[in-house]
Amino acid sequence: MITSFYPPRRTLLGPGPSDVSPRVLGALARPTIGHLDPVFVELMDEIKTLLQYAFQTDNALTLPVSAPGSAGMEACFVNLVSPGDKVIVCQNGVFGGRMQDNVERCGGTAVLVKDVWGEPVSPDKVAAAFDAHPDAAILAFVHAETSTGVRSDAAALCQLATARGALSIVDTVTSLGGIEVQVDAWGADAVYSGTQKCLSCIPGISPVTFSPRAVERIQNREHKVQSWFLDMQLVMGYWGSGSKRAYHHTAPVNDLYALHESLVMLQEEGLDAAHRRHRRNHQGLVAGLEAMGLTMAVAAEYRLPQLNSVRIPPGVDDAATRSALLGEFDLEIGAGLGALAGVTWRIGLMGFASSERNVLYCLSALEDILGRQGAAIERGAALAAAREVFAG
Amino acid sequence: MITSFYPPRRTLLGPGPSDVSPRVLGALARPTIGHLDPVFVELMDEIKTLLQYAFQTDNALTLPVSAPGSAGMEACFVNLVSPGDKVIVCQNGVFGGRMQDNVERCGGTAVLVKDVWGEPVSPDKVAAAFDAHPDAAILAFVHAETSTGVRSDAAALCQLATARGALSIVDTVTSLGGIEVQVDAWGADAVYSGTQKCLSCIPGISPVTFSPRAVERIQNREHKVQSWFLDMQLVMGYWGSGSKRAYHHTAPVNDLYALHESLVMLQEEGLDAAHRRHRRNHQGLVAGLEAMGLTMAVAAEYRLPQLNSVRIPPGVDDAATRSALLGEFDLEIGAGLGALAGVTWRIGLMGFASSERNVLYCLSALEDILGRQGAAIERGAALAAAREVFAG
Repeated sequence: MITSFYPPRRTLLGPGPSDVSPRVLGALARPTIGHLDPVFVELMDEIKTLLQYAFQTDNALTLPVSAPGSAGMEACFVNLVSPGDKVIVCQNGVFGGRMQDNVERCGGTAVLVKDVWGEPVSPDKVAAAFDAHPDAAILAFVHAETSTGVRSDAAALCQLATARGALSIVDTVTSLGGIEVQVDAWGADAVYSGTQKCLSCIPGISPVTFSPRAVERIQNREHKVQSWFLDMQLVMGYWGSGSKRAYHHTAPVNDLYALHESLVMLQEEGLDAAHRRHRRNHQGLVAGLEAMGLTMAVAAEYRLPQLNSVRIPPGVDDAATRSALLGEFDLEIGAGLGALAGVTWRIGLMGFASSERNVLYCLSALEDILGRQGAAIERGAALAAAREVFAG
Repeated sequence: MITSFYPPRRTLLGPGPSDVSPRVLGALARPTIGHLDPVFVELMDEIKTLLQYAFQTDNALTLPVSAPGSAGMEACFVNLVSPGDKVIVCQNGVFGGRMQDNVERCGGTAVLVKDVWGEPVSPDKVAAAFDAHPDAAILAFVHAETSTGVRSDAAALCQLATARGALSIVDTVTSLGGIEVQVDAWGADAVYSGTQKCLSCIPGISPVTFSPRAVERIQNREHKVQSWFLDMQLVMGYWGSGSKRAYHHTAPVNDLYALHESLVMLQEEGLDAAHRRHRRNHQGLVAGLEAMGLTMAVAAEYRLPQLNSVRIPPGVDDAATRSALLGEFDLEIGAGLGALAGVTWRIGLMGFASSERNVLYCLSALEDILGRQGAAIERGAALAAAREVFAG
């Protein structure tokens, strides 16, 4: 007989999901109402407005896809890529690889621009790819690579796409709410994100936004979008303005309560303050890790404050360390992915989880476990170094 | 400034979402843990087992798709239909139309078998379609049509498909948990459902199950599944057995807490008892409606107990009545869809919402509002008629 499930209380400092704030969990559990209820339709409108603020955009087509970030990615590709289209795909981590797969499943051709994992996308290489493929219809890249902790220059890359007459598709799954995302200022055309990173919301929903140029491309498609569920012409009818809504699917009502609350919290704190908080806690963590003798895996200028890749010191057992953190401290950090498996850990400080308390807790736990493993670390210096940053 | 959202407390007797039980809402709001946490992996295994019970199947590939029922539908089609495939699609309501759209977006050809809205799918017509199209690879139909409240004979239809060497795709969105669903006994090959109907869970997740024959078809595909997000070969790697999981997307952790709890409740009550409860409350509602002088829209033998289509009496304003029910009684019932818009109401008695209390409340509210509109109804008879059923 299977009985009710009571999860342990973890501290989530991995690559996501991050800790969800009690306010958001409270909103999540409010009584379900109908998805065609006039009160729910008002909620949908508020969510669109709040997402426009988060994305810093006036795009009318801004809404949450009723599925995780990877479906948001797919929504951008299936709506914008037509069979035969050439798409320049930048790969400097796991998620660029997934973009290539999406392009190919849409019947497009992916032109790959590869950079080393742990480094940002090179605008020069992208410019060269446009030179070699002037007929490229789309440029796709990841703003904040979750697999490595690297930020790429979204403004420069979107500008390149626009200058070459191409649309841009930008992954902001890990960036939204943690570092600056300026959809309109960048001139980005299709941008998707996730709820479970710096928005401190539960996983399962993907905010997306499409520029007027992107909407025009969608409306002039010759091939029907291959996905019924993600067809933006249908989805926008459901999320359309005023009281005219065409039934498409049943919205995930409670998840949208939670998203609404997390966006209200972001609006209350303000984007600038949220970004400052992420930066400061990142600086405290880095100071502590370096005082302990550990080394960051990403150059300071490209580091994501919300996802810290740190090198696993020599002689330390990767899996045993993460397992001890989870077992003894209820603390989750992330393993390295792909080329960086066994080489780095990924320590997330995302959204609600980006707090001084969590930085100090993580440093203490890591010091304790690495010390017991006999790693060559400096003991007793980490917390002081982090506190100095926080006091500064 | 947008502030926190507090939904009104509705009674949801529409076509779904239905009322979510407090136990499920409580589970939903438990603290989020990581989707790769060993404890979460155990939860995933329990959910698979509980879904096998709900579907009455031993199918190993039984899991919840991380998106609403319409994505579950699409998951069945994109994985089983290859370009050029011929699919017999039965249409006796809205959702058969959506199936056709799915087939065509997969590059398949839909052979339509049409029945009148409000009547079940005719096995004779399906047999004739197989005679005319012996090369049909798949038969697709809706077990319980949400748009009309009609049950079709899933056992007979699946048997026909098997006898003709075709696979069957069955929509059980509205049936699962409310009436008998016997995946293995039927010999069904791909079956999808939703969480927001008779499972009394929040909307947003779609349980699916695939027979070994269907899995074989998937594994021998020549064309890559057009959806990355819904590609079952990838999804089954993520939901795979034991501790070996290949990262695909981030599971909607809290939604799965809720689904788990709702399935535990179903297991506690038992499928037979749950079906009996749905049938009895349905009988009480019908007795009350008929005592009031209203007429059911569907013949008794095909009626879904969980979704009751009743004719709107002459001279009654459809929208004004539903609006008064919502405004004065916080009670949601459903409008007719498509051909039945303005002709019927759909009164759901699904899952947790299928209770004697809700039957009595709905009858009282309807009698009050129809009476005030001057409809030709019998007053004061409905509750007694319903109570007689409950006492019997």
